[in-house]
Amino acid sequence: MHEPGSQLIGNTDSAEGQQTFQAFSPQRQEWLTPSFREATAEEINRAVMLAAAAFSTYKKTDGAQRAAFLRAIADGIVALGDELINTASAESGLPLMRLQGERDRTTNQLRLFADLITEGSWVNARIDKGAPDVRQIQIPLGVVAVFGASNFPLAFSVAGGDTAAALAAGCTVVCKAHPAHPHTSHLVAEAIRKAAGQTGMPEGVFSLLHGATIATGQQLAVHPLLSAIAFTGSFKGGKALYDTATRRAVPIPVFAEMGSVNPVFFLPGILKEKGETLATQFLQSLTMGVGQFCTNPGLFITHAENGAFMDTLQKNIAALPAGCMLTPGILDAYNKGLGQLRQAGAQVLGKAEGNAHEAAPALLQISVQQAIANPALCHEVFGPSSLHIRANGPQELYSLAAALEGQLTATIHGTEEDLRQHAGLVDILREKAGRLVINGFPTGVAVNHAMVHGGPWPATTPAAGTSVGTAAIYRFCRPVCYQDFPAYLLPPELQDGNPLGIWRLLNGQFSKEALQ
Amino acid sequence: MHEPGSQLIGNTDSAEGQQTFQAFSPQRQEWLTPSFREATAEEINRAVMLAAAAFSTYKKTDGAQRAAFLRAIADGIVALGDELINTASAESGLPLMRLQGERDRTTNQLRLFADLITEGSWVNARIDKGAPDVRQIQIPLGVVAVFGASNFPLAFSVAGGDTAAALAAGCTVVCKAHPAHPHTSHLVAEAIRKAAGQTGMPEGVFSLLHGATIATGQQLAVHPLLSAIAFTGSFKGGKALYDTATRRAVPIPVFAEMGSVNPVFFLPGILKEKGETLATQFLQSLTMGVGQFCTNPGLFITHAENGAFMDTLQKNIAALPAGCMLTPGILDAYNKGLGQLRQAGAQVLGKAEGNAHEAAPALLQISVQQAIANPALCHEVFGPSSLHIRANGPQELYSLAAALEGQLTATIHGTEEDLRQHAGLVDILREKAGRLVINGFPTGVAVNHAMVHGGPWPATTPAAGTSVGTAAIYRFCRPVCYQDFPAYLLPPELQDGNPLGIWRLLNGQFSKEALQ
Repeated sequence: MHEPGSQLIGNTDSAEGQQTFQAFSPQRQEWLTPSFREATAEEINRAVMLAAAAFSTYKKTDGAQRAAFLRAIADGIVALGDELINTASAESGLPLMRLQGERDRTTNQLRLFADLITEGSWVNARIDKGAPDVRQIQIPLGVVAVFGASNFPLAFSVAGGDTAAALAAGCTVVCKAHPAHPHTSHLVAEAIRKAAGQTGMPEGVFSLLHGATIATGQQLAVHPLLSAIAFTGSFKGGKALYDTATRRAVPIPVFAEMGSVNPVFFLPGILKEKGETLATQFLQSLTMGVGQFCTNPGLFITHAENGAFMDTLQKNIAALPAGCMLTPGILDAYNKGLGQLRQAGAQVLGKAEGNAHEAAPALLQISVQQAIANPALCHEVFGPSSLHIRANGPQELYSLAAALEGQLTATIHGTEEDLRQHAGLVDILREKAGRLVINGFPTGVAVNHAMVHGGPWPATTPAAGTSVGTAAIYRFCRPVCYQDFPAYLLPPELQDGNPLGIWRLLNGQFSKEALQ
Repeated sequence: MHEPGSQLIGNTDSAEGQQTFQAFSPQRQEWLTPSFREATAEEINRAVMLAAAAFSTYKKTDGAQRAAFLRAIADGIVALGDELINTASAESGLPLMRLQGERDRTTNQLRLFADLITEGSWVNARIDKGAPDVRQIQIPLGVVAVFGASNFPLAFSVAGGDTAAALAAGCTVVCKAHPAHPHTSHLVAEAIRKAAGQTGMPEGVFSLLHGATIATGQQLAVHPLLSAIAFTGSFKGGKALYDTATRRAVPIPVFAEMGSVNPVFFLPGILKEKGETLATQFLQSLTMGVGQFCTNPGLFITHAENGAFMDTLQKNIAALPAGCMLTPGILDAYNKGLGQLRQAGAQVLGKAEGNAHEAAPALLQISVQQAIANPALCHEVFGPSSLHIRANGPQELYSLAAALEGQLTATIHGTEEDLRQHAGLVDILREKAGRLVINGFPTGVAVNHAMVHGGPWPATTPAAGTSVGTAAIYRFCRPVCYQDFPAYLLPPELQDGNPLGIWRLLNGQFSKEALQ
């Protein structure tokens, strides 16, 4: 490709935009080719119009058909082979092995949703026989705009969790690629387009738009035919989309995962028992992937004596390697964030060395009083730094926990005695986060049925959702009920005979039985 | 009571407000005593603070304890006897029999939620055993503000569906009474307070605030300790709360049911078969309760020949009784709404007679072209009027259906042949409404597990919710997951042994079994 990259609108490569942008290799510190065209207002409109037209067909596909589509996408991603991994690495600076793992995560997600909709019980069919006869099912919302994330060029981007969940639900998708990895996005979008063709899905079930300016995303967000927005990224970006979407003439839901500081509480007994080990594990979690995870432990709290733990942290932090970040903008924000913390009175406990193009791991410290007086100190600094808060006794610890903003995760390390003594802390943290972790680290989000990747504002909006795991599908659905419908107009999931053999709530009782 | 009525804040009758208001008897056309005090900013704050404190205890009650509370409320409402029914009738102008039925609906709702949380599977427990071990459950959001509706002084007010669902979920409630029926609200709130005391619930689990000005509701909506808002009423009122709640520093969800015109499509075959009968039934549905239902059929559509049907409508409408409406404001809005339709070119097909204090049933008509050119013509006129649109053939019918705004309900009358021929109409209407009705009328909302009382904007926000039926409980919950928790910190619902014997999703399979 020497020509600038195009929008993939249904089956058409559309190259109308005159404005272009380039991705940047953070490792090689150079601009990458080809450049990509910024989508025009006309192209954005065309992609959404096509997605809306495709929805009228796509919503009628059954679970097995959509599962075949999702599996074909997974196969197509695997078939891209090294080209995809190399491209993603060049654009993101992430190591090849990390990206191979992320590719597996991406294809596994697609297959997990394929399994879910093949089995079919996810639609939550509810039948009340009586007068009237009422039957409820979840139906897809319509056209979903997916905004790709910077830090997961595969798993939270073009064919990532949001797209997989939306397509599984029966929604069509217009994806806005993250401008940091347009070529990676292009390759994956081509795989989706091919999979759609192979499995007989309507043209426009998926389109990819590029744009490095805020305008592209905003134009997409205000389109009247859009039904929902999914976003993973910064608070600033998510909040801007939320504000736009809630002020439309017809407001639409925004499912924005906007990050978190993921507080980790270390209780006294366990610190005494294995303070050194925990310090080493904490630094591993903190610096994994140069700290570029939504679940990175950006805040940790202790109370009482913690000598070996803090000594080990301070001793080891300086020797940790610096690393290149996803984009120069993210690196700049990281360094500015640390500078602001220092200016606001945070004490630097230790910092690694690195060249100007790399992010150096760092540990800082503030008091509980500082944290409560200035909540901004506890806002996310995206990258490999963490802020220590030393509480004077459990009461101060509880006050601090109660003052925390919403989080994706909250973690407690403790012995059984610690945990039994601090059951009140679990109680407080349950109100603060979507995922509570005991004696582990928040990084690493399992993709399964029980996972919650979400939490109270400002972690996500709304809190009642998850962007990871099979429950993520419900963000893109709403319930509808059919009253006194003749059998021939009912979807199979709601027919008396239960032809799909799914679990249903029959007059309040779970059952796989047919209705008499 | 001769003193002005007070706020019921926890166990305290608070009478700090100097501003008072009175309810008005639409039947007797006179102001009612006692007057009621408008809640002050300080009282509003105290009610929410108390509710937040109560939440920390109430959220730990189990399903059986909360069920006992809900059942005690139901019993308390029954024990109020004729006083409640007479008071509600005086304040609303609704007939005694209608209110007796509404009382049954209210107590049945409370008992249905009691049964739901006694059984316990509603929490959607999901367990993935593995590394990590992840277990998900629904938890209550916190303090919910419930705004009572004008048209159901019992079933959608103080102890109505929103309060029942929120209390069942484990949320505490601050209710803002509708100013049209403060005394009714006061009686029910006293019953709730008594039930809370009898069943050992924390003080502040429920409080009642009065206010006839917009300020009361707005002050409540911006309180930082509020977690969600539930509202049933006008689009204007719901939209104002939505705007306030989404612009808070920490936005909170608003579950607003804002009404609907509930289009009814009459297909040619069935009109031919029984046009007269349908006309009679339609007028019954239209004028029931003086048309004061969210599900009132405010719009009906025909195509092709419909002689007997339209003739019967026009012949019978004039003879229908006028009736008194809930408040002078609602009557005024009804008459203004009809005036605006006429001014905008709607033709009056027929109108009943009535005195100045009553709403007279009316039928008007516009063309498809008028409806599509001016969507405001199809907005709700709350009361016993309906707007007929005559389409020229099925294509125009489909265009009109596709142009409709979001609705609570959409109804089709047709023979089997009609319905098979117009399957496309069902398909279009599914995107427009939360409930689809075949050969029935939209008025009458069954309270069961499968009901959906909600729909796309502007019917409700968000579309993914229902304010009637057991699924209404999920509006006041969010999922949380526990990762690698020791057994002694897990809630019973998520413990290996399944002590509550509930249905759970174990590694993706529904089961009531214990985990090995």
